[in-house]
Amino acid sequence: MREVAVIGIGVTKFGELWDKSYRELAIEAGLLAMKDAKISSEDIDAMYLGNMSAGRLVEQEHVGALAADYAGLVTRNVPSTRIEAADASGGLAFRHGYLAVASGMHDIVVVGGAEKMTDANDMQVVETLASSSDVEWEAFFGGTLPALFAMMARRHMHEYGTTKAQLASVAVKNHKHGMKNPNAQFRNEIKVDAVVKATMVADPLGLFDCSPLSDGAAAVILCPLDKAKKYTDKPVKVIGSGQASDMLALHDRKSLTSISSTVAAAKRAFEQAKKKPSDIDVAELHDSYTIAEIISIEDLGFSKPGEAAKGVENGEFSLGGRLPINTSGGLKARGHPLGATGVAQVVEIVHQLRGTAGERQVKDAKVGLTHNLGGTGGTAVVHIFERA
Amino acid sequence: MREVAVIGIGVTKFGELWDKSYRELAIEAGLLAMKDAKISSEDIDAMYLGNMSAGRLVEQEHVGALAADYAGLVTRNVPSTRIEAADASGGLAFRHGYLAVASGMHDIVVVGGAEKMTDANDMQVVETLASSSDVEWEAFFGGTLPALFAMMARRHMHEYGTTKAQLASVAVKNHKHGMKNPNAQFRNEIKVDAVVKATMVADPLGLFDCSPLSDGAAAVILCPLDKAKKYTDKPVKVIGSGQASDMLALHDRKSLTSISSTVAAAKRAFEQAKKKPSDIDVAELHDSYTIAEIISIEDLGFSKPGEAAKGVENGEFSLGGRLPINTSGGLKARGHPLGATGVAQVVEIVHQLRGTAGERQVKDAKVGLTHNLGGTGGTAVVHIFERA
Repeated sequence: MREVAVIGIGVTKFGELWDKSYRELAIEAGLLAMKDAKISSEDIDAMYLGNMSAGRLVEQEHVGALAADYAGLVTRNVPSTRIEAADASGGLAFRHGYLAVASGMHDIVVVGGAEKMTDANDMQVVETLASSSDVEWEAFFGGTLPALFAMMARRHMHEYGTTKAQLASVAVKNHKHGMKNPNAQFRNEIKVDAVVKATMVADPLGLFDCSPLSDGAAAVILCPLDKAKKYTDKPVKVIGSGQASDMLALHDRKSLTSISSTVAAAKRAFEQAKKKPSDIDVAELHDSYTIAEIISIEDLGFSKPGEAAKGVENGEFSLGGRLPINTSGGLKARGHPLGATGVAQVVEIVHQLRGTAGERQVKDAKVGLTHNLGGTGGTAVVHIFERA
Repeated sequence: MREVAVIGIGVTKFGELWDKSYRELAIEAGLLAMKDAKISSEDIDAMYLGNMSAGRLVEQEHVGALAADYAGLVTRNVPSTRIEAADASGGLAFRHGYLAVASGMHDIVVVGGAEKMTDANDMQVVETLASSSDVEWEAFFGGTLPALFAMMARRHMHEYGTTKAQLASVAVKNHKHGMKNPNAQFRNEIKVDAVVKATMVADPLGLFDCSPLSDGAAAVILCPLDKAKKYTDKPVKVIGSGQASDMLALHDRKSLTSISSTVAAAKRAFEQAKKKPSDIDVAELHDSYTIAEIISIEDLGFSKPGEAAKGVENGEFSLGGRLPINTSGGLKARGHPLGATGVAQVVEIVHQLRGTAGERQVKDAKVGLTHNLGGTGGTAVVHIFERA
C-alpha cells in the first residue's frame, strides 16, 4: 500500500443555508478543495461522497453521480461512489478515498461530504436520524437518537458519577472553540448553567447537549505522498485508518458506557500509524451529543474510563489544555450536516497540522486524529494524520 | 494488485416476498454464500452491501452495520460498508469488495445486495425509482424512470428503425430464460404479441417492457486467487472491473441511444482483462427496460450500433445463440430488487463458469461479463470473469 497525503481542503459555512441547494453545497466545497490543491477537475481520477439523507430529505438518491456530474467530472466518465453509514458517512467515504489511492487504483481522488437537512420538516429529520438506529427494535418504539444517547448518559452517570454539569462542559468548551471558527454554525459563548437548565430533550440531555440540524459540505483532495510536493509545500500524511462495526441496537451490547466499534477502529488506526493516544496533539471527535464526546475520549484512550468528564470540566481538552479536542467547534458548535461531518473533521485536522488554524491553532501540532460515529456507534471510523 | 476469485455464491428467491423482512433476506443470501464457500462468519474480514432504497422503503439507513450485526460479524467488529448508486448499488458494492481484496487490505470479503420493495405503496416506489434521475430537472417534471427510458427507446426507433416487436423480443427471450431459473420471479412464457399489446406505461414501453418490483438478496464471497483452492475446486477469477459516471439528466447528454458510462466502464474492464467483446461466452446485462438491454448490447460492443434489436429478434442472444445474454432471466424475469441485482448477476455468471447453471447452462462457458446500470446510466459498472 502506498503512502497517501491530503493536498487540498475545502469547507462551506455550516448552518441553516436556505439559499443553497444540496448540489450547490457539494460543488462549493469541492471547488474550494480543488483551488486549495491548485488542481482542476481535469486532474481528478475518482470521487467518493459521504451522504446519509439525500434520499429522504431532498428526495435525491444516486448523489455520487450527481456530484460528479455537477463537478464536470463526467465528461471523462470519472467514477463516483456514494457511501452511507449514517452520520459516519463522511469518515467512511474518506477511508475509501484513502484506500483507492493507497492501493494504487487511483492517483488523485476527491472525497466529499454533503448534507441538506433544513429543506425537510422536523418530523422527517427526527425519523431520518432515528433510521441510523435498529429501527425495528429502537426507533419503532420511540427510541429516537437523543433518547438512545440519553440512556448511555444515564448509565455513565450511574457507573462513574458523571454529572449534568460535566456533560454541559463539553458543549461549553465546543462553543468556545466554535467562536474562533468563521465557518461554524454557532459562534456564541454558552454557560454551564444555561446548558443544564435548557429545555429537556431526553433526560438527562437538554437542548444544548445536542448537536444542531445543519446544511453544509466539506471536501478534501488526496494523492500519493510522493507526488504531494508537486501540489503543496504542506502535505499532511494519512498514517492510520480504522473502521469497525458494532451491534446497532443498544440492548444487544455488553456496555452502554463504551462503544466497541470506536475501541476497535482506534486500535486498527493506532497500530497502522505506530502511534499511541499520548502521541496525538489535536483531535476531532464525534460529539453529536455531549455524552458521545465523553465516551469517545475514554474509548480512544485519551482518558481512563470514568475520567473524561472531569477532564473536560478541568480544561484538559480545551485549547491550551493537554489535548485540545474539537477545536473546530465540533458537531455541537460547528454544526452537524451528517455526511459532511467526517470530512469536515479532516479539514480541521489538516488546518491544525499545516499551522493554518488561525485563532484556534494548537501550537506546533504534529499528529492529529479524527473520530466519526454512525448513529449510536453501529459504525466507527478513526483516522490519524501527521505533518509530512 | 492481487488476483481475486469468487469462492462462494448465494441468492434468495426473487419476488413479492411478503413473509420476509429486509434483514432476513440479506442474511439468507449471506448464509447461502458462506455455506457454498464452506466458511463461517468467523472467517470474514469485511462486508460490502449494495442497497438503494432501505431508507425510503423500509425506513432503515445504516444497513451496512445492520447486516454485519445480524450476520454475527460485529462480535469481531468487522467493518461493513453500504454503497449506493441507484440500481447499480450491487455492482458497485461488488467492485469495492473486489478492490478491498485486490489491494491486500482484506483477505475474505462478503459482498451482499439486498432490497425490500414491496412493503411500501406504489407511489413511494415510483418516487424512489425516480430519485435515481436528476430529480430537480427530471423527476420533478414527471420524468419517472420508465418515461426517461421511453424517450431513449423512441430516439432509438427514430435513428435505427427499431420496432416495438424487437423491443418485445428482449422480454420474450428473458422470460424464456427465466423459466429455467428456479429463483426467478416470473417463470412463464410470454409472446411478442402480448408484450406489444400490454398496458402502456410510457409510450413506446408497455408493462412487459419493464422489470418488476421485487424483494430479494444475493451475496458472494471473495478471496485472493492463490488461496481460493482451499475453499473450492471451481474458483472463478475476477479479471476486469470498470466503473464510470455520466450526466444524470438525459438532456445534458450527447446521445440518447448510447450510454457513455457503459462505454467507459466496459473499456476499462476489457483493458484490464485483456479481452475483447468477442471473447465473452455469457453475459448478464441491465435490462431494467427492454430498451436498456438493446442499448447495452451495442455499448458493450456485442453488436454494432443499431443492430442489437435485430440480433435479439434473430436469437443471437438467446440460450444456444452466439452470445447468450441474461440466462438468469435478467431483471425482467428473474426480478429486479435494485441493490441485489448487480450481485445476483455475479452469482449467475459464476454458476455459468462453474458449469452449475443447470438447464440454462451455456456449454463450456469460460469468460463471462456483468453490466449494471444506475437509473438511466449516471453510473455503470462492468465486471469480467474467467474460469480459473
